[in-house]
Amino acid sequence: MDSHRGAPDVVTLGETMVLLSAPSIGPLRHARSLDVAIGGAESNVAVGLTRLGLRVGWLGRVGDDEFGRLVRNTLAGEGIDVSAVTDTGAPTGLMVKARRTSASTEVNYYRAGSAGSRLCPDDVPSDLLRGARLLHITGITPALSASARKAVDAAISLAGPATPVSLDVNYRQALWSPAEAAPVLRDLFTRCDILFATEAEARLILDDPRVASPLDLARALAALPGAPAQILLKRGARGAIAIVDGIPYDAPVHHVDAVDPVGAGDAFAAGYLAEYLAGADVHTRLATAAAAGAFAVTVQGDWEGLPRRDELALLQLLDADDAVAR
Amino acid sequence: MDSHRGAPDVVTLGETMVLLSAPSIGPLRHARSLDVAIGGAESNVAVGLTRLGLRVGWLGRVGDDEFGRLVRNTLAGEGIDVSAVTDTGAPTGLMVKARRTSASTEVNYYRAGSAGSRLCPDDVPSDLLRGARLLHITGITPALSASARKAVDAAISLAGPATPVSLDVNYRQALWSPAEAAPVLRDLFTRCDILFATEAEARLILDDPRVASPLDLARALAALPGAPAQILLKRGARGAIAIVDGIPYDAPVHHVDAVDPVGAGDAFAAGYLAEYLAGADVHTRLATAAAAGAFAVTVQGDWEGLPRRDELALLQLLDADDAVAR
Amino acid sequence: MDSHRGAPDVVTLGETMVLLSAPSIGPLRHARSLDVAIGGAESNVAVGLTRLGLRVGWLGRVGDDEFGRLVRNTLAGEGIDVSAVTDTGAPTGLMVKARRTSASTEVNYYRAGSAGSRLCPDDVPSDLLRGARLLHITGITPALSASARKAVDAAISLAGPATPVSLDVNYRQALWSPAEAAPVLRDLFTRCDILFATEAEARLILDDPRVASPLDLARALAALPGAPAQILLKRGARGAIAIVDGIPYDAPVHHVDAVDPVGAGDAFAAGYLAEYLAGADVHTRLATAAAAGAFAVTVQGDWEGLPRRDELALLQLLDADDAVAR
Amino acid sequence: MDSHRGAPDVVTLGETMVLLSAPSIGPLRHARSLDVAIGGAESNVAVGLTRLGLRVGWLGRVGDDEFGRLVRNTLAGEGIDVSAVTDTGAPTGLMVKARRTSASTEVNYYRAGSAGSRLCPDDVPSDLLRGARLLHITGITPALSASARKAVDAAISLAGPATPVSLDVNYRQALWSPAEAAPVLRDLFTRCDILFATEAEARLILDDPRVASPLDLARALAALPGAPAQILLKRGARGAIAIVDGIPYDAPVHHVDAVDPVGAGDAFAAGYLAEYLAGADVHTRLATAAAAGAFAVTVQGDWEGLPRRDELALLQLLDADDAVAR
Amino acid sequence: MDSHRGAPDVVTLGETMVLLSAPSIGPLRHARSLDVAIGGAESNVAVGLTRLGLRVGWLGRVGDDEFGRLVRNTLAGEGIDVSAVTDTGAPTGLMVKARRTSASTEVNYYRAGSAGSRLCPDDVPSDLLRGARLLHITGITPALSASARKAVDAAISLAGPATPVSLDVNYRQALWSPAEAAPVLRDLFTRCDILFATEAEARLILDDPRVASPLDLARALAALPGAPAQILLKRGARGAIAIVDGIPYDAPVHHVDAVDPVGAGDAFAAGYLAEYLAGADVHTRLATAAAAGAFAVTVQGDWEGLPRRDELALLQLLDADDAVAR
Amino acid sequence: MDSHRGAPDVVTLGETMVLLSAPSIGPLRHARSLDVAIGGAESNVAVGLTRLGLRVGWLGRVGDDEFGRLVRNTLAGEGIDVSAVTDTGAPTGLMVKARRTSASTEVNYYRAGSAGSRLCPDDVPSDLLRGARLLHITGITPALSASARKAVDAAISLAGPATPVSLDVNYRQALWSPAEAAPVLRDLFTRCDILFATEAEARLILDDPRVASPLDLARALAALPGAPAQILLKRGARGAIAIVDGIPYDAPVHHVDAVDPVGAGDAFAAGYLAEYLAGADVHTRLATAAAAGAFAVTVQGDWEGLPRRDELALLQLLDADDAVAR
Repeated sequence: MDSHRGAPDVVTLGETMVLLSAPSIGPLRHARSLDVAIGGAESNVAVGLTRLGLRVGWLGRVGDDEFGRLVRNTLAGEGIDVSAVTDTGAPTGLMVKARRTSASTEVNYYRAGSAGSRLCPDDVPSDLLRGARLLHITGITPALSASARKAVDAAISLAGPATPVSLDVNYRQALWSPAEAAPVLRDLFTRCDILFATEAEARLILDDPRVASPLDLARALAALPGAPAQILLKRGARGAIAIVDGIPYDAPVHHVDAVDPVGAGDAFAAGYLAEYLAGADVHTRLATAAAAGAFAVTVQGDWEGLPRRDELALLQLLDADDAVAR
Repeated sequence: MDSHRGAPDVVTLGETMVLLSAPSIGPLRHARSLDVAIGGAESNVAVGLTRLGLRVGWLGRVGDDEFGRLVRNTLAGEGIDVSAVTDTGAPTGLMVKARRTSASTEVNYYRAGSAGSRLCPDDVPSDLLRGARLLHITGITPALSASARKAVDAAISLAGPATPVSLDVNYRQALWSPAEAAPVLRDLFTRCDILFATEAEARLILDDPRVASPLDLARALAALPGAPAQILLKRGARGAIAIVDGIPYDAPVHHVDAVDPVGAGDAFAAGYLAEYLAGADVHTRLATAAAAGAFAVTVQGDWEGLPRRDELALLQLLDADDAVAR
Repeated sequence: MDSHRGAPDVVTLGETMVLLSAPSIGPLRHARSLDVAIGGAESNVAVGLTRLGLRVGWLGRVGDDEFGRLVRNTLAGEGIDVSAVTDTGAPTGLMVKARRTSASTEVNYYRAGSAGSRLCPDDVPSDLLRGARLLHITGITPALSASARKAVDAAISLAGPATPVSLDVNYRQALWSPAEAAPVLRDLFTRCDILFATEAEARLILDDPRVASPLDLARALAALPGAPAQILLKRGARGAIAIVDGIPYDAPVHHVDAVDPVGAGDAFAAGYLAEYLAGADVHTRLATAAAAGAFAVTVQGDWEGLPRRDELALLQLLDADDAVAR
Repeated sequence: MDSHRGAPDVVTLGETMVLLSAPSIGPLRHARSLDVAIGGAESNVAVGLTRLGLRVGWLGRVGDDEFGRLVRNTLAGEGIDVSAVTDTGAPTGLMVKARRTSASTEVNYYRAGSAGSRLCPDDVPSDLLRGARLLHITGITPALSASARKAVDAAISLAGPATPVSLDVNYRQALWSPAEAAPVLRDLFTRCDILFATEAEARLILDDPRVASPLDLARALAALPGAPAQILLKRGARGAIAIVDGIPYDAPVHHVDAVDPVGAGDAFAAGYLAEYLAGADVHTRLATAAAAGAFAVTVQGDWEGLPRRDELALLQLLDADDAVAR
Repeated sequence: MDSHRGAPDVVTLGETMVLLSAPSIGPLRHARSLDVAIGGAESNVAVGLTRLGLRVGWLGRVGDDEFGRLVRNTLAGEGIDVSAVTDTGAPTGLMVKARRTSASTEVNYYRAGSAGSRLCPDDVPSDLLRGARLLHITGITPALSASARKAVDAAISLAGPATPVSLDVNYRQALWSPAEAAPVLRDLFTRCDILFATEAEARLILDDPRVASPLDLARALAALPGAPAQILLKRGARGAIAIVDGIPYDAPVHHVDAVDPVGAGDAFAAGYLAEYLAGADVHTRLATAAAAGAFAVTVQGDWEGLPRRDELALLQLLDADDAVAR
Repeated sequence: MDSHRGAPDVVTLGETMVLLSAPSIGPLRHARSLDVAIGGAESNVAVGLTRLGLRVGWLGRVGDDEFGRLVRNTLAGEGIDVSAVTDTGAPTGLMVKARRTSASTEVNYYRAGSAGSRLCPDDVPSDLLRGARLLHITGITPALSASARKAVDAAISLAGPATPVSLDVNYRQALWSPAEAAPVLRDLFTRCDILFATEAEARLILDDPRVASPLDLARALAALPGAPAQILLKRGARGAIAIVDGIPYDAPVHHVDAVDPVGAGDAFAAGYLAEYLAGADVHTRLATAAAAGAFAVTVQGDWEGLPRRDELALLQLLDADDAVAR
């Protein structure tokens, strides 16, 4: 029922921007038009979780402009409980995405001083977090500004110790240097319960060049003091490795015709967290995570391709003839 | 505040369809692509009221398909409180719109047996209507099916005598003949408090060929037994006439560069009702109604161009040079 | 009945090219894409006549290439009896159209040595012409090549004296100079029964600078030795003048929102000829001619907007609200 | 010669609809426009046969609307002898196609009560079938309505025992259940001479769960009482198996970069039937069938990519550099 | 001759940004794509002057990014002598343009901290200015940053007293308040020889609320101490007034079908300055200025529609039929 | 520095045309629009060399039309020193490109009698060539016309014996037969220092059917009297073989997701020549040549995807996740 609005299962916070994408492959300057959408790591996860049946609240700031209304309306339209503050003093951020070649994607940001980067602790309503079953954060938000970093801290505090926190490291070199990022990310590492990281991000946290294989890397992370009980090491097209309560797992690998790699990590997180909140075992969490990631890359757009539960089965289809649902 | 969800000020119900529009002028069969949007007289009014600051609830039925999700998400994204029933037994309706010439628009419907046409009294939640300050209906819904007609009756009953009802006649020849429509519309005429009608629709209700001028027509309607206290006669580019509590008024006429005439009537209704609910006098109601109608026709799309309150002033701009807001 | 294929009422011959049009207004070099269609004065008239209920045969030559197939398929799809010779030695001609400003259109041709310009008398099948009730030609075809000029002569001969010939002067400065064109066009002038000309074209045939007003111009043409009995002087947005059997007539003028002026003359000819062949009086011929011309300019494309008989009434619609057919 | 119109070699009948396709991969509701084309299994085969040099007649019903004109004009433009009845009481059907992911296609139909589904025996002209060398039908038409089923029966009767009948099973779950379809399809199975079926369709006819391999399946079908002499089991990207006069054959498999799987089966049928009618041996029939199928999937659109005879050789090209014809 | 590169006749400096424009009318958030171009008041004038036959040098700063390359390449492609500094520390600025209604345009800027706003005196090469016959500046550049303001001062100094300076006031409220702008603009007013201003801008400089009519406004400006000898008061669709050496003039008014009002002022300036540098009298300057302005608004884009000398005559064409150049 | 204009390092000459490309795969006649760009083998190489840091001069002829201005402006915008003669007597040539299937591309030319084909010795300025370090020519130019052939001869003479000449054979069957081409190409073969050829082109020059393997073919070419010291045999996706000063080399092969094969050869030549002029060894030349070729095919367009030096490293990226530069 649409009009029923209970407390969200998951709360997340961050910056969501307007996303302008070049429709064809090639240098951005040859693009004759840009497609308009929105994107943000946290709201991507929010869409993914919503499609998998959860109720999600998203906190953020947008400008008092048309792009801000686009962010707000799109997320609300996707069924997310949007608590966006309208900032009359700064514009909504932009990102411009182009595929330089069929194998490389380039993103440029217009987010310095943006409304989204001015998120602050006062934007975080305590009542929203009190009822949540999970708080999801990323390493992007603390990189946006000092006030945004404090907003993340406030969210963790308000959620309280009984609410698990999941963290996707999402290191962005456009926002801060490894040296700036490392201490902040290490601190968040010890305060989260579920960690999503790429190999490079794991190395940034670990800072031990001797660790070689991905599995060793995951194990080394898990052995750090204060490490979260669930560590997910994302390896792109090569799959993912999990260490959950000390036990290693491999995520299944789907071989799909990738159309747009961006958003795969957010999809993976959404798939994993949806099953975790549904009480599923680690194998099921990883299966749905991998399936959601595979869906995401077969569709243009950072989040548009995220699957509903009833769509997950489409991945099994192999024969082109049978793949046409009539 | 996004997260605050009180009872809607206005409730409306009806069918909202996917709207496919030919981007260029010419016979539809030469269109090489169709733009995808949604449309429905009642939800158009709902968007208009929302943009003018009211909280609106929309009731309807959509199919369990992507087009149904498009209807639901778009309306929710616009800030409407959507109470859509998902009908697994029928598809979401379609309409296909083309401009045959720069001065004529053609609409084809694929709505026979659609989910939206299967609206029924059980779809109308009593609690939603109880708190509303206005119920808005159109003459389209009772034309869709017997159950939809009963849903309109149920809504009027549930709203109760203390809640004013506004009716936009919206006679659709594709749905029923004048002979079928007239008794139903005349019955609704006596049960509403605010009436919106074109000249042709007024004549359909009045059925007196001797009445000649638009003003006489409006007066004759107002003199019918059980007539609503507020009668709005819409005359397209020639403006509008009102009879409110027996007193005639003229709406101002805006000379704009019309791009798409569809939706002007819904915009007019939204503008009038927003001011009525704000307690404004009849002149203000008509001024905002006319302004909203003028906005609607300057933009492609049935409802996309509807103004927010702070945009109404844009209509005053006459000089091209000054019309660029920087 | 589609499968019934009798002899065509009207036969026409000429070059039809692929037509590439810039979708927006501005210098052609800023166009980022070009829309693909086809066009040719004679086949435009053929489409117009077909939509008004006549059976039309079109003769021409196309290259053995995809653009030739596009010409052939499009015309056959419009219901024209296409007798196109495939020329394996030359490509299908191209024209590139752009609106330099909102009031001026520019056309560039790639038709030198094209298949269409290589039309020759052997391409004209005698049986096709024998049953025709009208032969329609333009002053473009004799300008294409010596063989094309002979093909026009052959068509007139094969049609025989009992078959009326209509000629649209259609002087094209890109193809020949006034000095080259004048004798050829004057000769065709004496061999046709119905003449369509703009003022400038009338002056080219008349060559008498003293004649000032359009009406005098039409009268002077009608007074020339061997002049056709029906002379139509087209004046663009200012209407048209006819001298039929010595009597002057004015065509009605429609004030429409013009979108693309190209094709108005062909539409006018089609409207006139359709009524002429239907045995209508001169007023009716001119009314339909003017209506068809008005339709043509309200639609992007040289012929796409040409009306069917049941669409002619759409021009009466004035009120935007009523102009939406539902 | 275009104007030469002899009796068609092949006659087919069925419903052809307007086909609206999302241009990008992703959930249909995110599509911002839909491309407009037409499609229908039988007319797809008709286009394929026409391009391979045969004359084909297509029977069907369309609405008295622009979409009906689009169907009619497109097929006539492709050189098909169109005998379409215009049904003033029902609209032309629609189908909406989207690629949910790069590996799955979804089709939604708006064909309930459509003009095409109201095909009836009276629509089948006896003279057209009398001269035909083959009647091609599909299992879709009998699923549309009782009258359409009778139209198929009438066509088989009118064709007479000397005219071979080819049947493409084309089971559509949106139209009928397996239980409804099986007896009808089994009856048609015994009345045809050439059968095209997927594995799932073969199993629907056979109803023997013990048969395991595709070859056994084809053999079992061939062993049924009244089985056609030519059985083609289509296996998508895995190729096809034929049993012709009791002898098994394998179709060659082409590894192409598939862009749109829809239409591959129709292309296969067209390739096979074209060679069959040309008197070619089974190997040649299968080679052309496989080549046509490969062509179809390398192009967006259900039938647009179907090859002409002189294009079949393009499939041999392997080296990108040489693949550019200059 | 392309390879001949003499000193530029005119030098201008300022910020040129990437310009993203919504292709249709309506609220920006409903735009599904944005067209990519570039724009900047000074480079618009540079394009206009180049098309009218002058050699122009443009100074500015762009980011070390694809959008910077787009700015640089586009201007160089238009034949401008580009002296752009590549700033590795800041991105190229953006502006986003949308037509809210058919009569109002909205521009949003992403230029805070942009490369272009970091222009500084060192970016101004002395040799370039030494040979110039005119320096053109606008009131935008000093509003960008302190260093940009100094760059303008440096350019005026380097040009020297013998080189006339033209100033287009171009007040931008997004960049500074009237209170901040007035003293800076008044200072530049006394240092320029040719002034372009709208009425509102003239009032900002004059600051005398008693002056009522446009002509009085122009005269009052001309009477200020240190006023330039040539004052051009631009009045949009209502034309322009000039005071040159104390004598008032009226610019002709063209009635055109305006498609995009942005850029009209820059076109006017280019037309005026081109004739001024060609030694033409004031009437000719104003005629070309008005014609260039009229051209600019008939074309989508800020500068794309600017005319070449041989195109100026196109404005005389009134009759749609004759307006097709063949 | 933009304003610094020294003598070009490389000079090339030839015809550059407007290039119209169908945006989707399929028969060209189904294309609904064509994208507008430019292309020409020599100017493609010029762009490639410019992006790799060299200064390049291009000589050619364009028509006095918008397409000529597009050619000129695009090349100048890419930083090439354009010395284009404007030919008022002939139009700029066109080419129309379509992908018939996902594995085959078709190009049609409208260049007979084009401005570009009328290149003549007088168009070649002696001073431009005097300072050049390399002259690059192709086998296309001598095929265009007798005067164009003489222009190539004149360029070689003016360059003088001290300036190395590179020749890309680029045999075009649309322009001349093998019998016509062979003697001309063999003559150029003996006058160049660096040769680029496909296997088929090598065989055309060699005319010895006994030579079988690619390596033998390259060796046989190198053994011909007057053979250039550097022979590059291009083998498409299978790589390339070089014989430099008698020593054989293999170019590395990149496995990329090819989007558009056209332009790979020009990219290869640009990569090789850039390194040759930089004094790099043969391995480096071949590495950059192969990388540039790989870049070219991953992007739609003949030259748009050519890499800058700092982009060459992008080819190393293998992991989709890491391939997103942020």
